[in-house]
Amino acid sequence: MSKITLGRYMWERIHQVGVDTIFGVPGDFNLQFLDSVFQVKGLNWVGNQNELNAAYAADGYARIKGVPGVFVTTHGVGELSALNGVAGAMSERVKMIHVVGQTTRAMQDKHMMIHHSIGHRPDHQQYNNASRGLRFAAAELWDVETAPAEIDRVVRECFLQSGPVYIFMPLDLSSEEVDSSLLNTPIHVSPEVDETAREEAVKAIISALADSKNPCVLVDVLAQRFNATPETRDFVSKVHVPFYSSGMGKGIVDETEELYVGVWNGEIGTPGVKEAAKSSDLVITLGLLPADTNSGGFSRALEEPKTIHINPFEAVVKGKTFPNVPIKALLAALAAALPTTPTHNLPKPILPPPRVPRDRDATHITQSWLWPTMQSFIRPGDVLIGETGTTNFGLTDITFPANIRWQAQIYYGSIGYATAATLGAEIARKEVDGEEKGRLVLVTGDGSMALTVQEVGTMIKLGLKIVIFVINNEGYTVERLIWGAQQPYNDIVPTDYSHLLPLYRHPSPDESFHLAKTKSELEAILAKPELKTPPCLQLVEVVVDKMDTSWRLSSQLAWRGEAAKDYLSKEGFFDTYGNWGLDEGSGGTVKWS
Amino acid sequence: MSKITLGRYMWERIHQVGVDTIFGVPGDFNLQFLDSVFQVKGLNWVGNQNELNAAYAADGYARIKGVPGVFVTTHGVGELSALNGVAGAMSERVKMIHVVGQTTRAMQDKHMMIHHSIGHRPDHQQYNNASRGLRFAAAELWDVETAPAEIDRVVRECFLQSGPVYIFMPLDLSSEEVDSSLLNTPIHVSPEVDETAREEAVKAIISALADSKNPCVLVDVLAQRFNATPETRDFVSKVHVPFYSSGMGKGIVDETEELYVGVWNGEIGTPGVKEAAKSSDLVITLGLLPADTNSGGFSRALEEPKTIHINPFEAVVKGKTFPNVPIKALLAALAAALPTTPTHNLPKPILPPPRVPRDRDATHITQSWLWPTMQSFIRPGDVLIGETGTTNFGLTDITFPANIRWQAQIYYGSIGYATAATLGAEIARKEVDGEEKGRLVLVTGDGSMALTVQEVGTMIKLGLKIVIFVINNEGYTVERLIWGAQQPYNDIVPTDYSHLLPLYRHPSPDESFHLAKTKSELEAILAKPELKTPPCLQLVEVVVDKMDTSWRLSSQLAWRGEAAKDYLSKEGFFDTYGNWGLDEGSGGTVKWS
Repeated sequence: MSKITLGRYMWERIHQVGVDTIFGVPGDFNLQFLDSVFQVKGLNWVGNQNELNAAYAADGYARIKGVPGVFVTTHGVGELSALNGVAGAMSERVKMIHVVGQTTRAMQDKHMMIHHSIGHRPDHQQYNNASRGLRFAAAELWDVETAPAEIDRVVRECFLQSGPVYIFMPLDLSSEEVDSSLLNTPIHVSPEVDETAREEAVKAIISALADSKNPCVLVDVLAQRFNATPETRDFVSKVHVPFYSSGMGKGIVDETEELYVGVWNGEIGTPGVKEAAKSSDLVITLGLLPADTNSGGFSRALEEPKTIHINPFEAVVKGKTFPNVPIKALLAALAAALPTTPTHNLPKPILPPPRVPRDRDATHITQSWLWPTMQSFIRPGDVLIGETGTTNFGLTDITFPANIRWQAQIYYGSIGYATAATLGAEIARKEVDGEEKGRLVLVTGDGSMALTVQEVGTMIKLGLKIVIFVINNEGYTVERLIWGAQQPYNDIVPTDYSHLLPLYRHPSPDESFHLAKTKSELEAILAKPELKTPPCLQLVEVVVDKMDTSWRLSSQLAWRGEAAKDYLSKEGFFDTYGNWGLDEGSGGTVKWS
Repeated sequence: MSKITLGRYMWERIHQVGVDTIFGVPGDFNLQFLDSVFQVKGLNWVGNQNELNAAYAADGYARIKGVPGVFVTTHGVGELSALNGVAGAMSERVKMIHVVGQTTRAMQDKHMMIHHSIGHRPDHQQYNNASRGLRFAAAELWDVETAPAEIDRVVRECFLQSGPVYIFMPLDLSSEEVDSSLLNTPIHVSPEVDETAREEAVKAIISALADSKNPCVLVDVLAQRFNATPETRDFVSKVHVPFYSSGMGKGIVDETEELYVGVWNGEIGTPGVKEAAKSSDLVITLGLLPADTNSGGFSRALEEPKTIHINPFEAVVKGKTFPNVPIKALLAALAAALPTTPTHNLPKPILPPPRVPRDRDATHITQSWLWPTMQSFIRPGDVLIGETGTTNFGLTDITFPANIRWQAQIYYGSIGYATAATLGAEIARKEVDGEEKGRLVLVTGDGSMALTVQEVGTMIKLGLKIVIFVINNEGYTVERLIWGAQQPYNDIVPTDYSHLLPLYRHPSPDESFHLAKTKSELEAILAKPELKTPPCLQLVEVVVDKMDTSWRLSSQLAWRGEAAKDYLSKEGFFDTYGNWGLDEGSGGTVKWS
């Protein structure tokens, strides 16, 4: 019987479930089994500039491809550096496998003071303890007999939970051998379905729909994370009622669909959207993630007796729970059970005309102009990555063309995420689409980009044709809006972005860097052929006033109450539509603290 | 009675124990109490480009100033990003206070889905769990009545343990008020001394010294970390016997002292050093940290019956332990008890003449030439920071002038540390020395610098006059030596360092960047006035062949055995002195695994 190393086994298994790229940073305790990556046909290695970036890149890859993002670090130093990226995947339910190269078993047994350890008689498992609460499963490998099954188990858990798992691989163990025939049994990565519960749930939902005069659907992000995007689209198409998305759920169903109304973010929204949503007598949520930042600061108050939740692992129909009914399987069954002629024939709600921003006539770039302008730049098939800060609030405000894959870390909200995640997302996009089909467009801010800026170097090294917009507004504007508008702690390091591409030996840095301070400058840049079909990475610096913001952000903050409104006014932030975009008299009824 | 906020109280207390600069990154859950930093007279805020860099900067500050390095992060996202920097301080016994701005108590009580959290009913203390094993104490603040005493307790523990502690500050709690009179009682930061045990230890050590024919002293790093540098110098001067340092202990006692022999790194050393050390019949270690990377891969085998250990918390005299005798207090008592005329009058061992490197005549920059050349550049009063990799092995090989403060993370060995730590170290140096007294010289490698490169921006923003040498050898040469000499995972992103200074708007980038590919080019650069007395930050790129290394590193690896030697030869690494710098027939007797 032929034998392969355990290291090779691990990579073969990971490749079998659809992973074609491994991210990471080499270190003394993973080098030998990194060699095995190159033995697996079709598996590629992409080194990162640091481990946090590797975790973010793996996260971005997973979101686009629907399979785990996998990255490798070394014992302690690398492992811990990545932890925040792992926690982000835990928070946002992103499939991730973190492979940690540990010290040898002999070193561990003898508590040797090997570098990267702590103390005079180190416990080499100390770092493993740090991630215990931040992962769904871990293969703590020690014995070659049980290791293959342990690897299989956590790969399966990664899919079932849609979140991070760990493989701890002592360096010496990775070169021990296992039977290659173990590779012949596929790892089952689909969840079990309680068929009876599913049938009952389908019946209950169809019955509730039949009883409803004007139902609606709210599409949220967990549908996408649990790989149910196609089923979500089918269901929404077949049920044929007005539907909304959350900020995180944007684009899962095409916003070009006839009955798409808009982003229903509680009280914070464009005129008419919340009124339309609240008029429904039944709301069906798909994959709801009701965090503050994904619900207008908890202002989207759903009334449970009028709500059906289709959650990742269960359905809740007007208070009754149907457990062990995974979202993907339930939506498929629902779409199949719905009548071909929809039960309802509701019109799309008619919304008031768009408001006119007070700074419409400005010649410099305003946030009220920027986001609608970005809307015209985004093309069907693009992957769009947004960053925490004013940017994500701005991007939430635009309506997407068809087939946009939108990703942003809106619940976990770790600044710096977007730049490094873009690397992984673009690699995944190419694996899914092929080279030419779409673009990866990243929109980030100057404050956020600073945290992980070196990963732009990896993009350039790999020749990725990404379009990066960096909003330069002199620091952490999102924080200025919350507190300390003029405090030095909200200033950042002044940066001349024209030097970023040549720093990493971009092949045509001068032609690929674009600076816009005025509307006409940005319009001219967006019209350039190299932005439309980038021959290589393009960087666009967009200069925006530091006291300007997306109205969605100031609106959400003003909603907290009069004190917040007074702060925004007193500090001189720009109030795009008056009363911070809120209805007269609104605000202050939902408390954050 | 006058009142101050708890946030202000915390900063006042931290300032009272000698901290003048707070590092960190602002976030939603720390902004309000960052305002209080500015209320404390003499306390400064330095924002960092990301949180890992903030932790490293705080670590560098603490090492130079002997007081805690303090930095602030926000709940979860910032807190976890910094964890690797905290673990480094734990490993290397560096005083550090990590202040985490947490969500409000109401948010925590209600398990609200506030951004940066995990799950639908989040436990906001989840991240606190991650650092439990990586800190010596934590103030988990909740109640304004007990909070001041809790803050005082962890500040004291930070000094006693010389390591990291946490303060978890719920945002709303920081604005509650406490009596300002609490500030009048100083925090005692010195350890208790068991006077009887100290007296007995002094007697036992003096008696052992009297019984010894040729004692010697080994100075190691924990003496410095527990603030016993002056006492170490006094003791070594008064005992007047030959003394050695470890790699980490270099410079704690001036290497210009008459009886300094060299770095005793077990079997890995310049000719004659280990023979001299091993001929002693008594070795007194001061603050020993016997990690692999600080002991020639465990090849410095001390015989306990012939050894006295003066450890941070106790003395061990030929196997007998005297507990509760802190190193600083014991060394002070020992120096006082030693006779004015030393018991011994031993000569300095005569070492063989320096070996001649095989590549002496090269015109390009070789590692055999680079480090002696760096030796002539370092000046009394400089702070020297080295990075993990070939660099630290090279710097270990040079003899320092008087009064060099040498810092490197040789046990924990997290690459990227040195660049960000340099920021904090230079700020501390200026606080201790004043502007003009010395220089901060950083020597790092291209692979390591990439991880934390953005912190150079903070240095430029602050106008720090640091001299940075970056060894460009096309990747992770230290890893190539261990495994995968030509594997792509040991390559990094090609970087054109001439763009690093202008990226961060350095005032004179062209004049302050220097590129050396040959020995004569580097000599000319080192002779420039702006390197000798830098008017602003200077960056020197030193191009070195990727298969060249410090002989100390290849020697330590070759010492593992014949397989390691074969690997080094087969892959074509340069063997500076033949037989990888080992004695004929040596190697392979100490196993790493």
